[in-house]
Amino acid sequence: MSSDGKAQTVAPQEEINEDFLDEGGIGGNTRWYTDTVTGAELADYAPVKGCMVIRPYGYALWENIKKALDDMIKETGHSNAYFPLFIPESFLKKEAEHVEGFAPECAVVTHGGGKKLEEPLIVRPTSETIINYMFAKWVQSWRDLPLLINQWANVVRWEMRTRLFLRTAEFLWQEGHTAHATAEEAEDEARTMLECYRKLAEDWLALPVLTGEKTERERFAGAVRTYCIEAMMRDGKALQAGTSHFLGQNFAKAFEIKFQSQSGQLEFAWQTSWGVSTRLIGAVVLGHGDEKGLILPPRIAPIQVVIVPIYKSDVEKETVLASARSLEQELAKAGIRTHLDDRDNYTPGYKFNHWELRGVPVRINIGPKDISNGVVEIARRDDKEKMRGVSRDGLTETITNLLETVQKAIFERALKFREENTVKAQTYEELKSILKEKSVFVEVFWDGSSEDEGKIKDECKATIRCLPFALNHEGAPKGKCMYTGRETSRKAIFAKAY
Amino acid sequence: MSSDGKAQTVAPQEEINEDFLDEGGIGGNTRWYTDTVTGAELADYAPVKGCMVIRPYGYALWENIKKALDDMIKETGHSNAYFPLFIPESFLKKEAEHVEGFAPECAVVTHGGGKKLEEPLIVRPTSETIINYMFAKWVQSWRDLPLLINQWANVVRWEMRTRLFLRTAEFLWQEGHTAHATAEEAEDEARTMLECYRKLAEDWLALPVLTGEKTERERFAGAVRTYCIEAMMRDGKALQAGTSHFLGQNFAKAFEIKFQSQSGQLEFAWQTSWGVSTRLIGAVVLGHGDEKGLILPPRIAPIQVVIVPIYKSDVEKETVLASARSLEQELAKAGIRTHLDDRDNYTPGYKFNHWELRGVPVRINIGPKDISNGVVEIARRDDKEKMRGVSRDGLTETITNLLETVQKAIFERALKFREENTVKAQTYEELKSILKEKSVFVEVFWDGSSEDEGKIKDECKATIRCLPFALNHEGAPKGKCMYTGRETSRKAIFAKAY
Repeated sequence: MSSDGKAQTVAPQEEINEDFLDEGGIGGNTRWYTDTVTGAELADYAPVKGCMVIRPYGYALWENIKKALDDMIKETGHSNAYFPLFIPESFLKKEAEHVEGFAPECAVVTHGGGKKLEEPLIVRPTSETIINYMFAKWVQSWRDLPLLINQWANVVRWEMRTRLFLRTAEFLWQEGHTAHATAEEAEDEARTMLECYRKLAEDWLALPVLTGEKTERERFAGAVRTYCIEAMMRDGKALQAGTSHFLGQNFAKAFEIKFQSQSGQLEFAWQTSWGVSTRLIGAVVLGHGDEKGLILPPRIAPIQVVIVPIYKSDVEKETVLASARSLEQELAKAGIRTHLDDRDNYTPGYKFNHWELRGVPVRINIGPKDISNGVVEIARRDDKEKMRGVSRDGLTETITNLLETVQKAIFERALKFREENTVKAQTYEELKSILKEKSVFVEVFWDGSSEDEGKIKDECKATIRCLPFALNHEGAPKGKCMYTGRETSRKAIFAKAY
Repeated sequence: MSSDGKAQTVAPQEEINEDFLDEGGIGGNTRWYTDTVTGAELADYAPVKGCMVIRPYGYALWENIKKALDDMIKETGHSNAYFPLFIPESFLKKEAEHVEGFAPECAVVTHGGGKKLEEPLIVRPTSETIINYMFAKWVQSWRDLPLLINQWANVVRWEMRTRLFLRTAEFLWQEGHTAHATAEEAEDEARTMLECYRKLAEDWLALPVLTGEKTERERFAGAVRTYCIEAMMRDGKALQAGTSHFLGQNFAKAFEIKFQSQSGQLEFAWQTSWGVSTRLIGAVVLGHGDEKGLILPPRIAPIQVVIVPIYKSDVEKETVLASARSLEQELAKAGIRTHLDDRDNYTPGYKFNHWELRGVPVRINIGPKDISNGVVEIARRDDKEKMRGVSRDGLTETITNLLETVQKAIFERALKFREENTVKAQTYEELKSILKEKSVFVEVFWDGSSEDEGKIKDECKATIRCLPFALNHEGAPKGKCMYTGRETSRKAIFAKAY
């Protein structure tokens, strides 16, 4: 990369590759991950430090995820809107915890139109401040509430150690921002959106998730409570896949979002915010993939079925391609996202690998013998099962049902994996020795402090992923905190995380 | 805005209003425009100089426009992808004309993560440079071509004089970027996408447009040829609604996009780029609106039908609301975007104005008498026609047909307006006196230079909007250039423009 005029770029590719290396050897198959993401053409390294290019196949995956979530966001009464990319520096400073959390990772615009700006502008790391400034203009009366807004946008957080999709300086996401008349309504909203995220993860991405609350240490900067969905990756590590925050009145007070209540009093609004990002693509890659590459859940797969024609002679080719094309049309007509790989310069074997790497859920092979027998061969990506002699009659229905079966199977496989890799620990020594051996979810009684969490992170590289709702319900059994020994009913999941 | 803690913002609202004032008094109803855009809640001023907030109603309009165009972009074989927001400063400088065109309006990031950057980053004003850097990596052989990519993104151009939707520092758009093996293919592509833009404008936005080529003076910085669609607004001024560029090999040479041709030679790719933006919303406002506010074409209207229940007593209210709700469901089921305005604290008269300002194509009034007679009252927004006693039976079909009728009527009205406001001029004196009197499209023979165009702009505030295809076909008649007097077959449209 020296003689081709590209030397002046901010970050030549070799250098970026370093950047995307595993964070301090915490674990995980970094090489497998980046090879899969780039090999399957989901994304590529950009010539700007820490940034990525989302390639068409990755973007189509994102569009499918986005569509599924956008429908849920609208069904639950929210409207999309768009707010400025730039935030005046003074805005960010209005909420004390917020600025502390985000200031270190901001990108700052100091010049515009050839001149130095009077006040620097921050490229939004999240939009609480600018959106709440507008909310203060729009909200006057209880009749203006609830105000339920969502934004699909790019945000920038200057990260030192980046990894494609999982942690990049710029990423795409949605961020919901709402204002309510009461704390209860805002709390309900935060939980409603967490439930949408759970559905998105489990029903669409086929990723079982723990839902729960974050501890104070892992809370969003400026939130009263942070809820999250946490998924287990194939290496046993956790990945935070979405968060939903009950903000209380913190931002309402900072930005003076006041309304006249039904009883005529002036009150501060209660708020939430919630977001998921292109990180979900990383979750799908790491949550389902195997040694051959991606395994995509059919409901979000850009291509659900690939047809590979198999022929030797030109005569065979003509017959086989004609049959493959008619099948392609038949499946497409039924709403199945189908691709016919009619490239002439690759062997069937090459094509099998090509589409396996890309995680296409179902492959159909058609050869001359199949045609004369009125059958096709079907190969599943998830369990690699091959079904020979599947009748060509009613194939659309067969495939439709198979895609549903595969969707469920991928979810069940991930759930089983998580269950097999979740253990309990009674003492800190036990936790340490478990996590030293391998990455798993460790369920413990927990009554420690934020400081205790910090110490454990330093020693084990593990954090509390959440206090799962399922383990922290009313009347849950008590036990001794694995760290402090104090009796508590609070349960936490510790794990190493992406 | 002094006692509420908002004084530290970059641009308090009063100041921004100044910013959005008409550019040097060229003409047009600035006050009407901003009152309509803000009153209809399409957009609001942002607390960042030159930026806007797209409110839910405006964003829903954008989503409908986006969906229509995105479908066309995909049908014509393109894939969506996403490239970084930031462009290394050195990239922008690689194509000489390009940097000259965009450098004066760039926003520059100089600091990231608390440190000064080694090389400043430009917030993309358009993505030719960074996308073509990637194309150079991806394109090796003729088999990799054509490469047909589109991106939906935000871009930033630091404008001195801004106006909501029409000219803002940040705006949303799509930008297509393609690479081809031959000049002919690239030329075809540029024309194909222009045709998509024409369809979007005429079939969806109900805006008749002239299609044609820009003169050298108005060409995109770095393009060999720029094609455009130009619409006439209700004040007779022109609005450039979309452009499609044949880039030749300019960027391919700057970024070394080379491929091995079928005959084995190393060649530079031929390229195009094309874009439309949220400016289209401004075009819809100015292209159709009247004294009551917006007039939205049904195919893109966020709400196609609003139902206003009319009642006095509580008993009436119950009956009328029940009937209105069942109608709402019936219409929604048929895919008609319907809203029932059941607010109790506003009069029907207030609601009529409210929805007229927002340009909802069809309003249905339902009162107690209507219900007993099995009818409703329908009011069209476009021609203000009222239809009383419309049968409740088969109303869904009536409305479906009416929406089609309204869509066509809005287009026809705009077309008639343009035709009535297009005149011919033989001499420059004639052009001057026409444009002094009012804003119209002026058709002239044109053989002048870029310098001549500049002089005319200074004197008349008018520019060549395009050399329309319809007037510049093979065998078109000849005449004398209105400025130079030289004989030519080239025809141009002069107009004042947004």
